[in-house]
Amino acid sequence: MILDSINKTNDIKDVGAGDLDELAQEIRDFLIEKISVNGGHLGSNLGAVELTMALHLVADLPRDRIVWDVGHQSYTHKILTGRKDEFDTLRKFGGISGFPKRRESNCDAFDTGHSSTSISAGLGLAKARDLAGEDYGVYAVIGDGALTGGMAYEALNNAASLKTNYVIVLNDNNMSIAENVGGMSSYLQDIRTADAYRNFKMGLEDALNKIPGGVAVVDKLKKYKSSFKQLVVPGMFFEDMGITYLGPVDGHDIKSMVKVFKEARRYPKCVIVHVLTQKGKGYAPAERHPARFHGAEPFDIETGLPSVNRTKANYTDVFSTVMIKLGERNPKVCAVTAAMPDGTGLKRFSRKYPERFFDVGIAEEHAVTFAAGLAAGGFIPVVAIYSSFLQRAYDQIIHDVCIQDLPVIFAIDRAGIVGADGETHQGIFDLSYLSSIPNMTIMAPKNKWELSDMLKFAVKFGAPIAVRYPRGLAYDGLEEYRKPIILGQSEVIYEESGIALFAVGSMVKVAEQVRNTLKNEYGKHVSIINARFVKPIDEEMVGYLAKQHRLIVTMEENVESGGFGEKVRKCADEMGLDIDILVCALPDDYVEHGNVSILAHEVGIDCESIVEKIIDHEKKA
Amino acid sequence: MILDSINKTNDIKDVGAGDLDELAQEIRDFLIEKISVNGGHLGSNLGAVELTMALHLVADLPRDRIVWDVGHQSYTHKILTGRKDEFDTLRKFGGISGFPKRRESNCDAFDTGHSSTSISAGLGLAKARDLAGEDYGVYAVIGDGALTGGMAYEALNNAASLKTNYVIVLNDNNMSIAENVGGMSSYLQDIRTADAYRNFKMGLEDALNKIPGGVAVVDKLKKYKSSFKQLVVPGMFFEDMGITYLGPVDGHDIKSMVKVFKEARRYPKCVIVHVLTQKGKGYAPAERHPARFHGAEPFDIETGLPSVNRTKANYTDVFSTVMIKLGERNPKVCAVTAAMPDGTGLKRFSRKYPERFFDVGIAEEHAVTFAAGLAAGGFIPVVAIYSSFLQRAYDQIIHDVCIQDLPVIFAIDRAGIVGADGETHQGIFDLSYLSSIPNMTIMAPKNKWELSDMLKFAVKFGAPIAVRYPRGLAYDGLEEYRKPIILGQSEVIYEESGIALFAVGSMVKVAEQVRNTLKNEYGKHVSIINARFVKPIDEEMVGYLAKQHRLIVTMEENVESGGFGEKVRKCADEMGLDIDILVCALPDDYVEHGNVSILAHEVGIDCESIVEKIIDHEKKA
Repeated sequence: MILDSINKTNDIKDVGAGDLDELAQEIRDFLIEKISVNGGHLGSNLGAVELTMALHLVADLPRDRIVWDVGHQSYTHKILTGRKDEFDTLRKFGGISGFPKRRESNCDAFDTGHSSTSISAGLGLAKARDLAGEDYGVYAVIGDGALTGGMAYEALNNAASLKTNYVIVLNDNNMSIAENVGGMSSYLQDIRTADAYRNFKMGLEDALNKIPGGVAVVDKLKKYKSSFKQLVVPGMFFEDMGITYLGPVDGHDIKSMVKVFKEARRYPKCVIVHVLTQKGKGYAPAERHPARFHGAEPFDIETGLPSVNRTKANYTDVFSTVMIKLGERNPKVCAVTAAMPDGTGLKRFSRKYPERFFDVGIAEEHAVTFAAGLAAGGFIPVVAIYSSFLQRAYDQIIHDVCIQDLPVIFAIDRAGIVGADGETHQGIFDLSYLSSIPNMTIMAPKNKWELSDMLKFAVKFGAPIAVRYPRGLAYDGLEEYRKPIILGQSEVIYEESGIALFAVGSMVKVAEQVRNTLKNEYGKHVSIINARFVKPIDEEMVGYLAKQHRLIVTMEENVESGGFGEKVRKCADEMGLDIDILVCALPDDYVEHGNVSILAHEVGIDCESIVEKIIDHEKKA
Repeated sequence: MILDSINKTNDIKDVGAGDLDELAQEIRDFLIEKISVNGGHLGSNLGAVELTMALHLVADLPRDRIVWDVGHQSYTHKILTGRKDEFDTLRKFGGISGFPKRRESNCDAFDTGHSSTSISAGLGLAKARDLAGEDYGVYAVIGDGALTGGMAYEALNNAASLKTNYVIVLNDNNMSIAENVGGMSSYLQDIRTADAYRNFKMGLEDALNKIPGGVAVVDKLKKYKSSFKQLVVPGMFFEDMGITYLGPVDGHDIKSMVKVFKEARRYPKCVIVHVLTQKGKGYAPAERHPARFHGAEPFDIETGLPSVNRTKANYTDVFSTVMIKLGERNPKVCAVTAAMPDGTGLKRFSRKYPERFFDVGIAEEHAVTFAAGLAAGGFIPVVAIYSSFLQRAYDQIIHDVCIQDLPVIFAIDRAGIVGADGETHQGIFDLSYLSSIPNMTIMAPKNKWELSDMLKFAVKFGAPIAVRYPRGLAYDGLEEYRKPIILGQSEVIYEESGIALFAVGSMVKVAEQVRNTLKNEYGKHVSIINARFVKPIDEEMVGYLAKQHRLIVTMEENVESGGFGEKVRKCADEMGLDIDILVCALPDDYVEHGNVSILAHEVGIDCESIVEKIIDHEKKA
């Protein structure tokens, strides 16, 4: 195995040119084997094997800096920088991350996770290099999907003025997670098909700059422009901005890429190298089903099917089903996704109501303001975005939705601890950032039926409203508790005296476990109240709980600052209630990657931790 | 006066074609007169007089929808829609807003204030129109400056797929507030100077599509491409995305614009009309000093000089001066602005240290991640962005700066109530949205010396840190209180017993007034503590205050949810302190436009309101 000789950074440079394709194949096999067991991002990594190898052959690591946009395609980079043997721990608690991490390796130049940040970060590194009088290489590797994110364009616009070298590698597979959409995508497609002029630009730049123009050509061009523009000028979109364009080049041809990357380093300006790759390359099931193998659960290599068959619905499935019903009942209901029709569960809605479904690309800011426009035009848009990605649209929620009090519904999936994706993807801030926004209403369902009821409530609500629900299986307990949803009203699940567990969404299930433990092991009397609304909170309930109990324990899967517990504390304080309050929320820290239940314990919001906190608190009181 | 005949929407349509230029002049005189007295956005409005008139001549209002990007250029639109007589109340409390407001007129289709939202909102309106089976016109009017904002590009990318009409008017004055920067700007400059091919596209589209291509032209083009590309294909940047480009057209020639706008409405797709205007047009001082007349204070029409000469420094001036010193002392210190070199006070730094100054365009997201890149490359970037605009970069602060714990300094100007600009510009959320972010430290200075001290502290701090300060005059009282800044330590100003005023930044000055009133009129004993740090808060001080006082009053110019008061409450609660806490913060609501002191009273954070709250509270207790 050639892969056996790859044990540390730059070992690849000792591999013979004739052995590189064999090494690529071995890396593919390695990735398929490891990811089939642990799960992880398969398609993007299979697509980037040769691209990464070529970069490592050209770059001088760790002196040169590579910034991986999103970063889930960095597995080969990890293999080539001495982390091959840690792949059994990939995405596990305490193991290596599925994303680049500066703390993991000095070859990881910048942490990523969300889309479209790499060009900005790389430009900062390039400017820092220039200021320091250094001349190392800076590379940003960005997918064509990430290029629909506005900040990538902001960065390109800024990078155009650079007078020193900076290489942007556009890893173009015509996919982000699902199929790409929008103007940029059609544009890249046009370039891709312009085979006759592939590599047209290579080395020609200098020659061109020396030749004076000819008016005759202009005249002729006036007649032929539309039909020929793409053919004639690949990459002109970028050239127009002042960025040198090289390519397109075959992203599975190491030799060609090495040549172009070396060429790219020679220009004293920003250069974009357009590399064409295939997502899932070399593994037939992943080539056929790119969305399924984007973030894969463990699977059987032979068949490509998941190793464990899920029999129960997750919250995304529930959302997906309810959206079909809502779309049927109310012709005003629309759905908006930022490039995640599969992940958010909107695929079915898109098939049934294509006119009312909008995939705007990886563009959360635009998604929210676009939805505000739909609402101002009389419709009821449901914007489905993961909690951590919705952070991108904080200003748009304030400025475009809530100031005008427009009826936009935010369906916030992946709220709370998400697990293996780690720091960048944990949805642990939404209760805080949404709570600070006037005119916003926030709900969280305790189980799958309540998610359905809340979505129905939201459609009739007529003002900005969010419903947040976690990643993973939808809780199907407490079916019998299905009191109608009323604005600002919580729901009593168990009513006793002593301790009141006042829990938000997913924490109601945990509250049941906590109650059982407290009752069975400690003989406590425990009430459980399902908050339902985080904003506005149920003040009357707080007053009632304060009278009937000696302690209110708030439970939420969110950081404490600005969260639910603080609202309960404020309410009790303002009502002058003499009640002891224990806030159980996430600490003021990021939450790394790992199994959700391990992480819940680490941050102190699992049953065991909360019981311990309550018992400790009661001892002190 | 022709202007006398303009009293309601569509009155302009009765003005004779020969009188339109005269009307434009009268509107200009009207604007100059009104703004010279009240202050307001002059340059952008003078530039957009004819553009707005042409739109009103073509559009059928209120049936058609016009979305004004940023919206500060909407004064002529307000004049033409029945609001002329309210101009004496412009930007005053209870008067008309300086921005479009749906509540003000049914001709204001969408509220704006921040940059780059119009294309998204307009696209939403256009889709809503299509779904409703209507065919009214939708126009977005966006400046070339706003086009550097990423979400404008996200929206363009999405708009490219539209199969019905949507008109984007690009109001190109080669300026946003300061001079424009970046690739898009150079690109537009190239179009502007391509006089020979102006209007090249008009009406030619159909003809071109019918003609088959010729290989000979392609060959010739290969030789001449670089030098001719801009000349040959104006607007190809947009055409590449699938958006029809019309223009450029003279933005002060009403007849031409009317013709192009009518033409633009005929295409069943997204059309961009490129209009060339001059900022400040028709008023010499504004033409010469566009930055000064962007948001103007009252001025003398004859000379263009401010009516009231400011003799005292504002916080921006102090920041400006300190930055020069910091740049001198530490060669690692850089400065980053998002198109606001004047507004943020970084102009002087840019002159003295051009290599270390970065104006990235209206692109807050990129600005922050770019700064993170600079920091990862070993530098100490100071990112100066207004509080309400920094909302745009909430995710980048979490994801690119704070997860990696990078030493980026956020200089947050216009924090708190800003006054005349109203809802969209009030900086009343930053303490909340920054507090929820792990690894973030937040400071607020009580006076001008403390701003200086805090910036010096920040440069040495080595981790993410924010200093927020308000719009307007820098407080120069309490000069003698200048204890060194120590992480997490507050500062005692007056120490008595009874009531402790625990105040953040600008509220220390108010606390002095409150203390005087409480002492003189009510005979109370009052301490004042300057918080200095909002995160981490001074827990030891909270413990001490609780022992020495019967009431702690927290004072902050921020919404309550997630703010300073909630932190004090949490701290007291967790320390088991038996202390009464009164939180004085802004209510959970937007704050409209008007004089800062009127607004402070309205939201209950001026001296009078706080004294009243304290006295009420003491009565109840």
